[in-house]
Amino acid sequence: MTRSLPVAVCQCGPIRRDETRAEVVARLVAMLERAAAGGARLALFPEMALTTFFPRWDLEDDAEIAGYYETEMPSAETRPLFDAARRLKIGFALGYCEAVIEEGRARRFNSMVLVGDDGAVIGLYRKMHVPGSETPEPGVTVHLERKYFEPGNLGFPVFEFQGVRIGMLICNDRRWPEAYRMLRLAGAEMVLIGYNTPLLLTETPRLAHLRMFHNHLPMQAGAYQNTMWVAAAAKAGLEEGQALIGGSCIIAPSGEIVAQVASLEDEVIVHHADLDMNAECARAGFDLARYRRPSEYALIAAEPAAAGRE
Amino acid sequence: MTRSLPVAVCQCGPIRRDETRAEVVARLVAMLERAAAGGARLALFPEMALTTFFPRWDLEDDAEIAGYYETEMPSAETRPLFDAARRLKIGFALGYCEAVIEEGRARRFNSMVLVGDDGAVIGLYRKMHVPGSETPEPGVTVHLERKYFEPGNLGFPVFEFQGVRIGMLICNDRRWPEAYRMLRLAGAEMVLIGYNTPLLLTETPRLAHLRMFHNHLPMQAGAYQNTMWVAAAAKAGLEEGQALIGGSCIIAPSGEIVAQVASLEDEVIVHHADLDMNAECARAGFDLARYRRPSEYALIAAEPAAAGRE
Repeated sequence: MTRSLPVAVCQCGPIRRDETRAEVVARLVAMLERAAAGGARLALFPEMALTTFFPRWDLEDDAEIAGYYETEMPSAETRPLFDAARRLKIGFALGYCEAVIEEGRARRFNSMVLVGDDGAVIGLYRKMHVPGSETPEPGVTVHLERKYFEPGNLGFPVFEFQGVRIGMLICNDRRWPEAYRMLRLAGAEMVLIGYNTPLLLTETPRLAHLRMFHNHLPMQAGAYQNTMWVAAAAKAGLEEGQALIGGSCIIAPSGEIVAQVASLEDEVIVHHADLDMNAECARAGFDLARYRRPSEYALIAAEPAAAGRE
Repeated sequence: MTRSLPVAVCQCGPIRRDETRAEVVARLVAMLERAAAGGARLALFPEMALTTFFPRWDLEDDAEIAGYYETEMPSAETRPLFDAARRLKIGFALGYCEAVIEEGRARRFNSMVLVGDDGAVIGLYRKMHVPGSETPEPGVTVHLERKYFEPGNLGFPVFEFQGVRIGMLICNDRRWPEAYRMLRLAGAEMVLIGYNTPLLLTETPRLAHLRMFHNHLPMQAGAYQNTMWVAAAAKAGLEEGQALIGGSCIIAPSGEIVAQVASLEDEVIVHHADLDMNAECARAGFDLARYRRPSEYALIAAEPAAAGRE
């Protein structure tokens, strides 16, 4: 018998700075309905799917900043999405900005929550690789994500969704081979990725035309080298004057892109992911237990002081 | 001032089972001359560049088997290549089968030697990820490399060639993200890769059309994710009835293929690798010291017993 999981990637078009949660959630519910109608049992939304990508700005108004974060999930404003999941019998993963009191202090994370088809939270991931800087560094970083989020403190957890082992990654995480490998070693069969990626990097003109190549390359390699399914949802289009790439897609454990959006707007694609393909691809070239040399990889897990020159 | 290294990739067409070392070395010297004439200061030959890819066979004749290995480097038979390097003022890297007495016993490695433009050995690499099996496993492995070679015992060394830090990988190594990362963390700026890759994998018909994609994908990702140059030389063409893929190429730290062969025969391509591009690409997205989370990657360097399910 073939094990499969019909999964939907829900790309979001631009979200305005003044768009309300109610407006955004209504867009997400509409996409969840399309995903369910398409036969999906799990739907993926992008990173920061409830707000505009505000780290592009060096904001000073604390009230505005606080307004971008969720202090509970679900809240009154996001509950309609959870209710829709239960009504439609479809799970979802949602990227959002998380504000929480932990260790006696206010902390902010760039997070993604995995929700079951009963509307109950299954698990939480907090972005491990937070790029950008705390303060503007012209010519070095292109946004201020480290002003608004601290790096995640939950590692690379894997959760079970309807018998399928699921990992999550957020935006810059997808560029790091360690992220996919950690999930694979924890048994992940599918990785859900959300991202907001600017088209223009004025700091590096020589690389500017490679933005979509650099989007797909590490995700396809991550799928191939770990023989896992990868689903990736973008925030796309011209958002507050900044062009974000789309390219949302579903990638097989062979590294092949098997489904891809064709717009920069709200768009839903569905693919029935064959989970037997993972083992078939692993057998063909990636029997990790047999061929990996973990004791030879010490430098990868060593702190920089021990690792020497980087 | 721009730092650069003009590098040549010397793809080898098929090598017959009965081809003598003298015949093969003459082919390599001819390619070394073309590389030098093209302005290269370093030339790369494939894995097992002196012999046919004999691990395709379950050989029983010990004399034939021994004949595929080098017991010294250079030997009388391979010295013409070293002499040519000195004469042409060009270094080279050469994949070969190494037989050595170590720890009081005969050992065999799938190796690559790096040689300076004075014909002196700079360093040695022994293939770390040896695929295949020790005895035939129909439907599981496609060759018997582990019958003929034990996995390398020298780690992932980096050597200096004319001021450029060089790492080496061999064939299956190039599919593992850990290999590139280990070299990058040791300071490599360029990775030299040799391979013999069969076109047909009858065990996995669903993946058969992806052989070239699976060749380039992990090498391009390795270059991009580690912002290093990658040069890759294939043994190509119909060798003793087995089709080997070509696709030898040179890949920039952006992940772009900047030079590629257009044949399955002896062919030389040259590219002036701009070594300032490494830092430019790193700055744009891979400041490892700033953004990596090594303490969160413990599982990658943990032995399977500790790593749990794989």
